[in-house]
Amino acid sequence: MSSPSATQDSYPYQNEPIWSRSEKIVARAAFDAALKRELQEVMQEAKQMANQINEPADLWDLEHYLTHSRKEIDRKYEYKYSQLTQVFGRLLHEQRLSEEELHGLREDKLNSIRSFARFLSEDAA
Amino acid sequence: MSSPSATQDSYPYQNEPIWSRSEKIVARAAFDAALKRELQEVMQEAKQMANQINEPADLWDLEHYLTHSRKEIDRKYEYKYSQLTQVFGRLLHEQRLSEEELHGLREDKLNSIRSFARFLSEDAA
Repeated sequence: MSSPSATQDSYPYQNEPIWSRSEKIVARAAFDAALKRELQEVMQEAKQMANQINEPADLWDLEHYLTHSRKEIDRKYEYKYSQLTQVFGRLLHEQRLSEEELHGLREDKLNSIRSFARFLSEDAA
Repeated sequence: MSSPSATQDSYPYQNEPIWSRSEKIVARAAFDAALKRELQEVMQEAKQMANQINEPADLWDLEHYLTHSRKEIDRKYEYKYSQLTQVFGRLLHEQRLSEEELHGLREDKLNSIRSFARFLSEDAA
């Protein structure tokens, strides 16, 4: 029971894709670009909401929007290689990322990413 | 033990000041005016902060400012007659209310209000 092969069989990460050095560079750039765009969008929206504040309730709407956005961004942008196909799949589904930005990833990863994006689209329909 | 006089002796509000109808009108107007001014101030500040947003950290500073302001306002503006002398004392101390706006309250209430304002000023010093 304590032989190395028995342990190896249950090694939890054995089915995880390996990210090559060049893939990691592509992934990081795509991730950072999507995050930057989403943050820019929130900054733009917050400025617009603030400009239109006329009554106290508008203040708390803005507060709620900011809290919600922060939590959403925290949840969505998790840079872990074990999570990246789902992260990119979601960003693709939300049209926050284009497939061109993922150019350079291996085909099996792209397939997983597309497949998760498709799942989310079908789930939302 | 169940005689009415025994119950009356322990009546919890016996030392509370009574607010006359005309005093309630003065109190309500002063309270509403101070609250309105403070909300206007927060709206002004939020607009200014939003205008100056340049990076994501500025977004979360604005969120924090709004959450803090909402909680402060909730805490401070409690319209209960049992709390009003402290509420007005605090607003006087914070210079959010002038003594003129309390004109029409009985002298004993004004003294309590001034006394609590003085306590807060000394406490802050």
